[in-house]
Amino acid sequence: MLPLSVLEKAQAELLSYGESGMSVMEMSHRSKDYEPILEDAIAALRRLMNIPDNYKVLFLQGGASTQFAAVPLNLMNKHHRADYIVSGNFSKKAYTEAKKYGDVEVAASSAGSLNPFDCVPDTTRESFRENIDYVHICYNNTIYGTKFHYIPDTGDVPLVADMSSCILSEPVDVSKFGLIYAGAQKNVAPAGLTIVIVREDLIGNADPSTPTMLDYKAMADNNSMYNTPPCWCIYMAKLVFDWLESIGGLEEMMYINRRKASILYDYLDSQDYYTSPVVKKNRSMMNVVFVTGDKELDAKFASEAAKAGFKNLKGHRIVGGMRASIYNAMPIEGVEGLVKFMDDFARANPKNADAV
Amino acid sequence: MLPLSVLEKAQAELLSYGESGMSVMEMSHRSKDYEPILEDAIAALRRLMNIPDNYKVLFLQGGASTQFAAVPLNLMNKHHRADYIVSGNFSKKAYTEAKKYGDVEVAASSAGSLNPFDCVPDTTRESFRENIDYVHICYNNTIYGTKFHYIPDTGDVPLVADMSSCILSEPVDVSKFGLIYAGAQKNVAPAGLTIVIVREDLIGNADPSTPTMLDYKAMADNNSMYNTPPCWCIYMAKLVFDWLESIGGLEEMMYINRRKASILYDYLDSQDYYTSPVVKKNRSMMNVVFVTGDKELDAKFASEAAKAGFKNLKGHRIVGGMRASIYNAMPIEGVEGLVKFMDDFARANPKNADAV
Repeated sequence: MLPLSVLEKAQAELLSYGESGMSVMEMSHRSKDYEPILEDAIAALRRLMNIPDNYKVLFLQGGASTQFAAVPLNLMNKHHRADYIVSGNFSKKAYTEAKKYGDVEVAASSAGSLNPFDCVPDTTRESFRENIDYVHICYNNTIYGTKFHYIPDTGDVPLVADMSSCILSEPVDVSKFGLIYAGAQKNVAPAGLTIVIVREDLIGNADPSTPTMLDYKAMADNNSMYNTPPCWCIYMAKLVFDWLESIGGLEEMMYINRRKASILYDYLDSQDYYTSPVVKKNRSMMNVVFVTGDKELDAKFASEAAKAGFKNLKGHRIVGGMRASIYNAMPIEGVEGLVKFMDDFARANPKNADAV
Repeated sequence: MLPLSVLEKAQAELLSYGESGMSVMEMSHRSKDYEPILEDAIAALRRLMNIPDNYKVLFLQGGASTQFAAVPLNLMNKHHRADYIVSGNFSKKAYTEAKKYGDVEVAASSAGSLNPFDCVPDTTRESFRENIDYVHICYNNTIYGTKFHYIPDTGDVPLVADMSSCILSEPVDVSKFGLIYAGAQKNVAPAGLTIVIVREDLIGNADPSTPTMLDYKAMADNNSMYNTPPCWCIYMAKLVFDWLESIGGLEEMMYINRRKASILYDYLDSQDYYTSPVVKKNRSMMNVVFVTGDKELDAKFASEAAKAGFKNLKGHRIVGGMRASIYNAMPIEGVEGLVKFMDDFARANPKNADAV
């Protein structure tokens, strides 16, 4: 979902951007018309996230899945060892991909919960091995609806975080991380843009076998223009950054997101027709997972919700149930409407038909 | 450049695609609204290029530069040897990248021409080594304005072609190639989409170190949806494919492109103010390179042309001079206007001021 005002601006400028006489989709990435768009986007993201000067911002392609390989290829270069915290589907994928490139272990996992991945594992500095190149986490677990309630203490070891489904949802202390990456398609822009924020000392030691396009040095040295970047997605990201600044930045976005999430979680906690399977302290502010406890009712819910205009409420095939993704662009009214629909559905579809 | 009718359709549908109530930029790639867009795009490309059934069509990210690594990682798996024909900047980059992954040699090059890369080297089957996994060419050389006038005979060895700057400009016999790839940003869609057309027997033998996102098997097995694809670019590509079919397909596109190129080359051959540095039989139909022979005049030309609305006429920094890129979406009137501007400029800026 994208803010309506952003879509309207994109629509108005689609045939001709500013005085250029052409669509952003047609511009050469090295043109006087386009370069300010890229520069403005980077500057706005730096302001929004308060990114320290010793971090580079890269606008890449290939999604978080490409970073699953790029991170070990670039960072696992001294000890050839890295530790992963596995808290869901994507952190498991990242771990599996990294194993191709070195000695990679699971430092902590919530796979073994009675209800697998219903929480994020706690860790201390002792959870991690000595002599490792980095620790990897997935900060918000889209499918399971969980989120890290703390930033793991890794000492001097760089912490790498996949923030695909929570970037820009609230302020985050970038200096606590060695590298943050995120596919843009949840909170930033249309699919096709990947944001990498990387501390400068971690750039420049990629394995010699690294494809140039996955080498952070080639990307940083060319300000993300080693080849043609995804110009339109970067333009859309810039419009979203402008929108975030216009509403008051990430502090304000966090308050709005907390309010939206509270409306849903407060409702879930106030009745017993629906249940949240997630441990309370790990509840995601972006992805609210819930179940009726009856697979047929779950399916009916998703189907009727879609008809009522609440799209994509079906939970991921791995977990079933329902998932309401309430990313930045979802207005409060959308969440209120959903709660009303949930309540109406519960009353219209009692679980024990005999009791009616 | 994109056809105006395509941009207008994208603009009209930007806020809400069909009955979906949402922008294509907001759709989940696994939704009932989006999946037909991907399927239709693949089907239309198959029809347009008459792609045989034993070839897969993949919609990827990362540009041709990512394929420079993906091709050797996937194909250089039996003999660990490949031959490259070097005919310009991008084929040289592809060759350099491939050398990371095996025994790679230049089978033929036009770098040694008196005017480097002013032509495409001729080859015979004997130009290539025995026991190689593939031969790689760049079919149209954007920067130098040259194009292969023949399809190299490689016998049983798969021929791989980078067609980034000429795909869909004319019919091509796909069956003569093992693999064709192209960044979409010249003739197909906004930057951010890479098309790969690959013969099925070449899929499934990637080197174990290949990042999953660069492994054709992972992409083919998941119909380009291993992760979130660049949905908006694929949608734009579909609109362009529809437009191409509406004007009569690639045969008709070729006639139009030939006519456009002829207008420029005929003018270049009819006077001696401007010169085409390219060997005649290798002239590109997409990128028409020309020079005045005077660097100051070249610079003045590019600057005045931009003011007159002819953008991006400055030649690449490697070669200087001018380059008119007359991709599919450039109308004949645009080329006619350029020739008129060139003629006016020549008369207004005589080379030998004393002779005036």
